[in-house]
Amino acid sequence: MRATIIHGPGDIRVEDRDYPAVQLPTDAVVRVTAACVCGSDLWPYRGVKPVRHASAIGHEFVGVVESTGADVSSLRAGDFVIAPFVVSCGQCPQCLNGVTVACDRLAGWGGTDDAGLAVDGGQGQAVRVPLAASTLVKVPGVTEPDAKLRNSLLTLSDVMATGHHAAVSAQVGPGRTVVVVGDGAVGLCGVLAAKRLGAERIIAMSRHADRQAVAREFGATDVVEERGDDGVAKVRELLGGVLADSVLECVGTKESMEQALHSARPGGALGFVGVPTGGAEIPLRYLFDKNIAVSGGMAPARTYIPELLKDVLSGAINPGRVFDVEMPLEEAAEAYKAMDERRAIKVLLTP
Amino acid sequence: MRATIIHGPGDIRVEDRDYPAVQLPTDAVVRVTAACVCGSDLWPYRGVKPVRHASAIGHEFVGVVESTGADVSSLRAGDFVIAPFVVSCGQCPQCLNGVTVACDRLAGWGGTDDAGLAVDGGQGQAVRVPLAASTLVKVPGVTEPDAKLRNSLLTLSDVMATGHHAAVSAQVGPGRTVVVVGDGAVGLCGVLAAKRLGAERIIAMSRHADRQAVAREFGATDVVEERGDDGVAKVRELLGGVLADSVLECVGTKESMEQALHSARPGGALGFVGVPTGGAEIPLRYLFDKNIAVSGGMAPARTYIPELLKDVLSGAINPGRVFDVEMPLEEAAEAYKAMDERRAIKVLLTP
Repeated sequence: MRATIIHGPGDIRVEDRDYPAVQLPTDAVVRVTAACVCGSDLWPYRGVKPVRHASAIGHEFVGVVESTGADVSSLRAGDFVIAPFVVSCGQCPQCLNGVTVACDRLAGWGGTDDAGLAVDGGQGQAVRVPLAASTLVKVPGVTEPDAKLRNSLLTLSDVMATGHHAAVSAQVGPGRTVVVVGDGAVGLCGVLAAKRLGAERIIAMSRHADRQAVAREFGATDVVEERGDDGVAKVRELLGGVLADSVLECVGTKESMEQALHSARPGGALGFVGVPTGGAEIPLRYLFDKNIAVSGGMAPARTYIPELLKDVLSGAINPGRVFDVEMPLEEAAEAYKAMDERRAIKVLLTP
Repeated sequence: MRATIIHGPGDIRVEDRDYPAVQLPTDAVVRVTAACVCGSDLWPYRGVKPVRHASAIGHEFVGVVESTGADVSSLRAGDFVIAPFVVSCGQCPQCLNGVTVACDRLAGWGGTDDAGLAVDGGQGQAVRVPLAASTLVKVPGVTEPDAKLRNSLLTLSDVMATGHHAAVSAQVGPGRTVVVVGDGAVGLCGVLAAKRLGAERIIAMSRHADRQAVAREFGATDVVEERGDDGVAKVRELLGGVLADSVLECVGTKESMEQALHSARPGGALGFVGVPTGGAEIPLRYLFDKNIAVSGGMAPARTYIPELLKDVLSGAINPGRVFDVEMPLEEAAEAYKAMDERRAIKVLLTP
């Protein structure tokens, strides 16, 4: 099969790999029908995260079950499934608490599972899925989704689940005022999640016309282009002199974290899903003085998917709108380039 | 009247001051029937917080309304009232959001109000209370509480409200497992608050037999004396291999904050009410990796009092148990000494 391999910073190649097979009774093999490039895939691509050896990459995919191990009774060949961005067992205390991203048997796509076996990356033609019954989510009644539905299902792998996690962590609910920092796919999904959870006012911080348009489509009531103190002042002005009840931080840099923190009112809540980089910190004394709640981290996508899936299937939300470019898998290198240069919000790859 | 004045580190004197009078139409004058010394009063006493000039001290008191300004229609002479530890207006966006400690017209006892007038300290015979209608809470049906009730009412000024804030911030609720770091009056009230909110398991971290006894009386199911990694290991052992759902941090030092953070399970919540000192910080990456929620700060006592008062009046909770020493106001200097040397959990002063 063909699969995307990262060899080093800036070095993405699509290569031949053995077609995967069921190796453990808890495995399934999934034929990938759509995958995509994540903002976090750009860290090794940009050399921010070291690439120690060539490895399969990609952690967002949907597809069709081709075969299952003897212990996988809840799935069968032909099922259309969504793969969350990590493997989880569903039985350890962490999974039972809903924190599947802290699973005792956690494994990542393109890494190795807890049996020491290699796990395929998501940007390829097929994947061996460990702990398939607890990891994959079957899409009921769907075998061949059209492109629109497929795209939205694919966002549940990561970006829509992550935007939802930011909104939940920021305590978004009916009547709340919301600021979203970050206009990447996750930030845009954060806008959609805030809207879905009943926010009254949603301010998207964005300077790009194409992203602003998606934000408005997703429910943003206002767009703020200013940053730093000017951005905070603008938020305060839009909200009648008070800062936001809920702030979603969807970037992870020092600047974006400050922007987010300073946009929250006393007693407000900050949900952060951008992986903290470049010295991003939260001064404890500021939290104390302002009584601001901070919560977030990797989204437990597996926990959220059933709830979000219902709204995707009913057409209530259309997060697949974040894909503005589609390319064949063979052009994965160009997909990374387009994301890196911010020519695309998010690129979908079809194997 | 007699009032407690701090002149410098270690220098507490009870002196004569003018008896307060109503100065603004929104004022009330309250005759103090009980006051107390707070852990935070020890910062200037210990020289941790500078004492720039001699000033009235004390921010926790209960007493009887003696006179009211023309605009104070909800209170009358003879009412028994609880004073929260700050003055708040009840009408600004912060107060309407319940965050009375961030009130636009905030004032502190022993400081000055927003009209620039001096405000008496709580450790004295009487106090001019600015914004009396929104600041004070009348105790219905009570004019002369007995000592037991009086003591519990006095805790609502600060320590019980603060323990409750820690528990609420740590998302304590039915079935949750809880660790409380800090065995001062606030930590002990945190235990009581956790019990009141339905926690299933409450582990008090304490090395002092007298405090352990109060903790158990308040609902602690377990006591852990170990600290650092040993303390965390003990918590994990007691909870069957998993860390706590909710952790209350009631100290504020670097060590206690680490203890608290490392006692929370993935996806758990940390409520902190100890004022961060000595380099206490929360590494953002740790929060991200563990999906731990952090929330806290100064307790909006004014917001919480009505709810807690109901349970004090019904006898459901008896937080006044934290007072283990009672002294006449004239012995305030000795009261500070006893608290400083940890010979007392909390000292009550009677003017």
